[in-house]
Order: sequence, then structure tokens, then C-alpha cells
Amino acid sequence: MKKRILVANRGEIAIRLIRAIQELDYEAIAVYETPDRNSRHLRIADEAIWIGDGPRKDYLDVEKIIGTALRSNVCAIHPGYGFLAENPDLARACENAGLIFIGPPSKVIENLGSKVMARRIMAEAGIAMVPGTENLPSGEQGLQVAMEFVARYGFPIMLKATSGGGGRGIRRIENEHELREQYPIARAEAKAAFNDDSVYLEKVVVNPRHVEVQILADRAGNTVHLGTRDCSIQRRNQKLVEIAPAFQISEELREEISQTAVKAAKASGYFNAGTVEFLLDSDNNYYFMEINTRLQVEHTVTEMVTGIDIVRSQIRLAMGHNLHVRQEEIRTRGHAIEMRINAEDPQNNFMPEGGKTISVYRSPGGYGVRLDGFCYQGFTIPEVYDSLLVKLTVFGWSWEETVDRLRRCLTNYVITGPKTTIPFYLNLVNDPDFQQGVFDTSYLETHEHLFEYKEDNSEINKLARLIAEIHNRGENRYAK
Amino acid sequence: MKKRILVANRGEIAIRLIRAIQELDYEAIAVYETPDRNSRHLRIADEAIWIGDGPRKDYLDVEKIIGTALRSNVCAIHPGYGFLAENPDLARACENAGLIFIGPPSKVIENLGSKVMARRIMAEAGIAMVPGTENLPSGEQGLQVAMEFVARYGFPIMLKATSGGGGRGIRRIENEHELREQYPIARAEAKAAFNDDSVYLEKVVVNPRHVEVQILADRAGNTVHLGTRDCSIQRRNQKLVEIAPAFQISEELREEISQTAVKAAKASGYFNAGTVEFLLDSDNNYYFMEINTRLQVEHTVTEMVTGIDIVRSQIRLAMGHNLHVRQEEIRTRGHAIEMRINAEDPQNNFMPEGGKTISVYRSPGGYGVRLDGFCYQGFTIPEVYDSLLVKLTVFGWSWEETVDRLRRCLTNYVITGPKTTIPFYLNLVNDPDFQQGVFDTSYLETHEHLFEYKEDNSEINKLARLIAEIHNRGENRYAK
Repeated sequence: MKKRILVANRGEIAIRLIRAIQELDYEAIAVYETPDRNSRHLRIADEAIWIGDGPRKDYLDVEKIIGTALRSNVCAIHPGYGFLAENPDLARACENAGLIFIGPPSKVIENLGSKVMARRIMAEAGIAMVPGTENLPSGEQGLQVAMEFVARYGFPIMLKATSGGGGRGIRRIENEHELREQYPIARAEAKAAFNDDSVYLEKVVVNPRHVEVQILADRAGNTVHLGTRDCSIQRRNQKLVEIAPAFQISEELREEISQTAVKAAKASGYFNAGTVEFLLDSDNNYYFMEINTRLQVEHTVTEMVTGIDIVRSQIRLAMGHNLHVRQEEIRTRGHAIEMRINAEDPQNNFMPEGGKTISVYRSPGGYGVRLDGFCYQGFTIPEVYDSLLVKLTVFGWSWEETVDRLRRCLTNYVITGPKTTIPFYLNLVNDPDFQQGVFDTSYLETHEHLFEYKEDNSEINKLARLIAEIHNRGENRYAK
Repeated sequence: MKKRILVANRGEIAIRLIRAIQELDYEAIAVYETPDRNSRHLRIADEAIWIGDGPRKDYLDVEKIIGTALRSNVCAIHPGYGFLAENPDLARACENAGLIFIGPPSKVIENLGSKVMARRIMAEAGIAMVPGTENLPSGEQGLQVAMEFVARYGFPIMLKATSGGGGRGIRRIENEHELREQYPIARAEAKAAFNDDSVYLEKVVVNPRHVEVQILADRAGNTVHLGTRDCSIQRRNQKLVEIAPAFQISEELREEISQTAVKAAKASGYFNAGTVEFLLDSDNNYYFMEINTRLQVEHTVTEMVTGIDIVRSQIRLAMGHNLHVRQEEIRTRGHAIEMRINAEDPQNNFMPEGGKTISVYRSPGGYGVRLDGFCYQGFTIPEVYDSLLVKLTVFGWSWEETVDRLRRCLTNYVITGPKTTIPFYLNLVNDPDFQQGVFDTSYLETHEHLFEYKEDNSEINKLARLIAEIHNRGENRYAK
């Protein structure tokens, strides 16, 4: 009987994981909440197990996931990103239940998940960080520590929830009035969201670039980097576009940042795949931000330029294999850009378009084009999850070729039903600043014309939807 | 007004060309014969021009293609592969009409198209060839020269039409009786097929491997190679599976063959993209076979391992740019395998399944997977052209990873309606010899179990076809 791995996630990343699992000749066991009952990830899995009505409740239930894993006789769990991926409880529960957790040890997740602990580890390793505080003392005393900090470093500052992450639990403070107003609110919200009211401060690096480094580490202590990614193009601290390697940065600086990332990973006792995030200011100073102890959404761009399958590597590392590549064998080649095609209306503050049915789905392809999605014509997008439909990742030898290819793909991409970020991205690839690689985290605010386009509202789409909804089955199996 | 390029081809290669043309910001002008009126290549082109009822008549009509090109104000013609790609008349007509032919000069096509002339050029350059004759004298005298040849080199021999190519006009002769019988038939058939009854002989290299080298050359005299491909897995001299780089051959031998290919290209005054084909025997002797003066079907595998877009390169070279890469910048990485998914029944001698409608089409994707196709759900495959539906090209860091990925893709590929080569390929990827890279041109004859599988004939496919046929439109355009 084949060995089995449970995929504790949904959507495009569940499909990404199932593909890698099946390629390694394991069976892939999917789990799902009721709103995902029509998701493609259930169809391609070897078995799909219903775990509850959800939404976003059962996917987050450590006990239920572990129970399901034990009952279905799997040997390992892959958490993907989001949900339980950075919850040390799942890793620890796996360790206790004799299951392999495909990720770092619970202790590492815990240390790096605490921003304050992470900063302590990095400080010891001599890694530059944005000036910041430890957890603020509670009450009025915390406010006093904050005032001392801004007296030294000035505004703006970031007020961050210690247990936050991925853009959540962060607020920017411009002056003393805002600080006094926001401080108690931030504490209360952190308590509600993360069950932990700790907060701390960081100096704001004005209009930085977000540069991160992909890491792979085995249990024998070998740690390699797979080069850099630029993820500066964001909306409300959520990444929209990711680029590998980081563009318009010298080879020397990229190498230096990558080496620092390896040092950071080693300092934290890292194992499996992870990402070390930095802020890069306009003077090429870079500051450690955090280590994400999981697979990233944007791992695809790194795979395109290095040729290394990160998910396959994760699984093999977790199963006890050593790294299959040495640092000197890893070379990035060309450029890759990922655009997250979301069911959102960019013209309406990226309002999610969940609940709508995809009436026509026609995707581009060919040389240098990779799609990671889970939707199909006739699919109704669940309202209760995030709005990512498909990741369009494009490779090219030169930056210009990559942008040319991206434009071609976006022009030919047809998704009707929900509004998507496609027309916004079409404007983006035609923007001279983007074409020249001139962007930082302020890009969206400073380029309002990206939001100027007209949606097509023709009647043919409504007709097409009707047909798409009744069309949707078909099997083809071959047996000896 | 944008410059325009005419695509003188159909099917998947027309789409491949249109994508590259549009990425370079030219308009792509498609042409079509009536049986191709529903082909996807017409939809993605900027303009589609009907050139006649065909079949395989108007696509081959040099005068019509040139006239259409001039009337539609294009600056260049890309011939793809097959049809007019290796017809020096089209290249010459372009030269005379002031149009850019995306390929080598007519004189080079002519020289290399004549197998005898090609052998003469290679002999002068000191390149090893399979022992063979010049064109045989006509009548009884030709037979006498043939007998002298076999007295020296022995049977088996190949009797080849001088104007043949791509597997056509070739017959294998095992003994004197067959030679006497086949000789006049070969001449008559060559006359009928190519309007040229010249034939010549070549010694048969027993169970060779077919190894070829991709070449790019600019007008400034720079010629580079993009490494090797193994195309040994064939049926009736038609390639089915292609691999880059050639597997189970030492790095040194690959490099030596590649250098020989560059020498051969230079000896023939080569320009633009081309392929130098060799036979490799079991003692690692290799013999020049021919130079294909065009893009190959299997160029995709080379693109995957080198990261170089060959079609984009072709267009830029034709437009007068020099090579964008130097030889030392070109490195192959990992392994790529292409499988030609044909609408054919492998169990019935690969009988074409044209005329049938694709009732369900569901394709695999994700990391390392590339598809080059032109069909879609609801599409009726024209009976009058070749049976290639889609090229599945897969990349992996190691050979094992590549084969694993291929198996996953084939398992998840759903095409119902016509029979396809998919179940045959599934057996192939599970064959231990293939998995170990042990194959030569005799592979299909010596592995009969590849043909043992059971087609699924369930009723659901018929239902699905009905729905697929009524479903098929939808547009989505964004304007400022």
C-alpha cells in the first residue's frame, strides 16, 4: 500500500501540494469544509475527507486535522500557507502523534512567530533590523516607553501585534495624537484576533522595497538560499506582484542579502523551507523583518528562475533526505514575475467578488507561462475564503521579454463572472515605471492611473454563464 | 501602425508563432483553409485571412501566400514547420518581393534540402557521415552502383528519395531480392511525391539513437548551439517523444556532437534557427544525417532546459538583430521531455482519429509543465491534416523528477472523443527501460507491452460531448 500525506489546506495551494505529493508517488488525502465541496482540489486528490461545515473553522482545528490524519493512516501533513501553517500547535501535535510535519520544528515556528523573540535571535546573530522595541509593558507604562522610542527615532512608526503576521495586526502611526488614540485600540484588537494583546513598535522605513530570500535547510545542517524575490507591489500590506530575482538591485547586494538570510536561518536553527523577509531602503540599507516558517504564495517565481521544485524539496527534506543541491549548483536564470489574479474589484478598493460563478474561463499558456489555480468554468467562488483565483507566473530571459510575455498572457486571459485584478494588471504591465523596474511599496498610491479602465458588461457573458453551469463533468481512465 | 507578420501555418505551431509575434509587439496575421475555420489560431491572431478550400493545397501555395502577405501589408512571413517551411521557393519569393523570410536564405535551404548536396558540403568540412552514395544513375546502371555499395558495406541499407525528408521517401532494404524489387518502386513513388525521382543509398546504422543539436546563427557570423535532443522514440520514422539534453550520453560526447553541429552549420553558411541531426550508434560513433532548415516540433524541450525562446530568437534574428546570447552564457539545466499527444489509436497502428469532436478537454498544469496545443472542448478535429493535438513538455531537475511529473500529467490529462496517444504514453513512463533512459529507435518494436491498455468507453463521454458542442464562446475585453 502506498504511503499517504494529508493536505491541510484548500484552493490553489492544495492543488500545488497534491501534484508534488503524487509525483513523489504518495497518495494525497484532501480535507474540505462544506463551502469547498466543488473545489477542484477534491477531484485530483486520491481521497477527500469532509471535516465540517466551516467556514475557516475546521481548516483551523488542530485536533480535527490530527484526528483525520490518524484515522486515514497518513504518515505526514503538509499545511501549505495560511490556516495552520505557522501555528506551532499543529507542528507540536504532529510531533506528539508520531506524524511528520512538513515544515520546521514547532519550537522554531514558535520562536520566529513571536516577533520579539525573532528580533532577539537576530540581534544576537548581528543581523541589522529596523529599530524597534520589545513588547510594550501594559497600560500607561507602555505608552511611556513608546514616547521615549519616538523621541529618539521620530515618526512615522508601526504599531504591531506580536502575534500578527501576513499584513494583519499592523497600523502606521504618524504623530503623538494618533499614538495615544490607536494604542489601546491596537491592544484590544490584538487580543480579539490573536488572543494575545502584546504589541510593539518599529520605526517606519519610508517607501521601502520588500525583498525576501527563499531558504532550504536539511537536518544535517546544510542551509542554502534560492536567491531573492521583490514583493514591493502590495495593496494594504498584501502582496499582489512578486518578482525573482529582486530587480534593479546589483548582483553584489542580492548576494549579500542572500547570505544574511542564510545566517538568519542558521541562527534560528531552521529546517525545511522558509523565507527571510527584509526591507530595503532607497540607500540600499536592508533590515531584517521576519522569517516566514512555511511555503510562500510566491514560491513559484523562485522555482521558475532556479529550476528547483520547492514543494518537492520540502517533502523530501521532511522525509529525512538531505538537500539534493549544493549552493554552488543553484543559479538563478532570467526573470520571473507572478501576478495574483484575485476575484476582486480593484476599482472598488479591491472588494472581494466571492459568491459569483465563473461563466467563461479561458487561460493563456505556452513557453514561459505557468498557472497555479483551482477554479474552472462553472465554478462558484466560495464567499468565505480569500479571493485568490489563480497565480499567473511568467518567465523570460530578459526583463523586457518577461514583461512582453506577461502582457500577452493578460490580454488573452478570459475570466467572466466575477470581476478580477486582470485589467488592473494590464495597466500595470503597460506602466513605464513598472517596465523599468521602478517601484517600491508606495507604488499603488503613487500610480492612480492603474485603476483607470472600463469593464466589459456585455450580455454574452450572462448567456455563457448559463452554459458553463450545466457543463462540467467527464472522466477518462485507462486500465490494463 | 504596428508592423505585421504573416503566419503561414496552422494548428499548435501557428499559435506558438502568434504568441511570440504578439509578445514582440507585431500584429500576427493568420491564414486558413476552410477545414481550419474553427481553429483557435484564428481567434488569437490579430487578423485571419481565408486563403481557400484546401485541404493542404492553399497552405502549400507559394504564390497565394506571397500575394496575401503583400495585400495585408506584412513585413515578414514565418513558415513554422512542415508545409512551406523547407521549400526554397517561398524563401526565394520573399527575397524577390522584399519580404523578410523568417528562416535561412533560399540558397541554404536548397543546398541542405538536397541530401546529396548536403553530404558534399559536410564531406568537405570533414564531418563524419553514414556511408552512402551520391544520387544513383537512372535505370539498370543505378542498380549496379547499388550492388557495388552493398558488396562493400553489406545489408541492411536505406533507399532514400533525394527530395524526401521528415521520415518520408525512406525504405529499408534487407537483401538483394528486396533491393531489385523496391528500387523501381522507390523511384516511381519519389517522382509522384516530390516530382523528383532521384534516390540514393545509405548504410543502415542498426538500432541507432537519434540525436540532434539546436543551432542559432545571426548575420554577423555568430553561431551558437543550444545543446542536444534525443528523438529516438519514433513510430515509422516519426518522432513521438523528444528529450533534452540527450540522456545517458556523457557530457563530453554531448559537447563534441554540439561542436560538430556548429561546424556543420557554419560550413553550410547557416543563418537563423536550424537543427543538425545525427545518428549515434551503440559504440558512441555519430554520423551526420541532415540539417533541418526550420523550427522543429520539438524545439520546446530545448527552450525548457536553456531558458531561451527559440521563436522569439528567430524573429529577432530575421529582423536583423544579432544573437542576444553568447555561447558561454548558454547552459542547459535539468531535463525536459516532450510527448506528442496525437489524435491516433496506438492499438490500431496509430490510425488517425481525425473528424471526431473533443467532448471533454481537461489539461494538467503547474510547475514544470508546458502545453502547446490548439484544440478545445467542442472542437472537431479536421480529418485532412496531421493528428497532433497538443505537445506536453515537462521539465525537472533530475531525470527521475521529470518522469514523475510526466506520469502525473498524463494521469490527469482528460481528452475524450478521439482516441489519443495518452494511454500509450502512460505505459511508456511506467516502463523500466524508459525510466532508466535505455531506448533507441527500435524501442517501440521491442516493447510491445506499451500497447496493452484498455480504453474507457463509458456513456458519460457521449453526454459530455453534447454539452461541449453547444458551449464555446465568450469574450472579455478591457478598454480605457
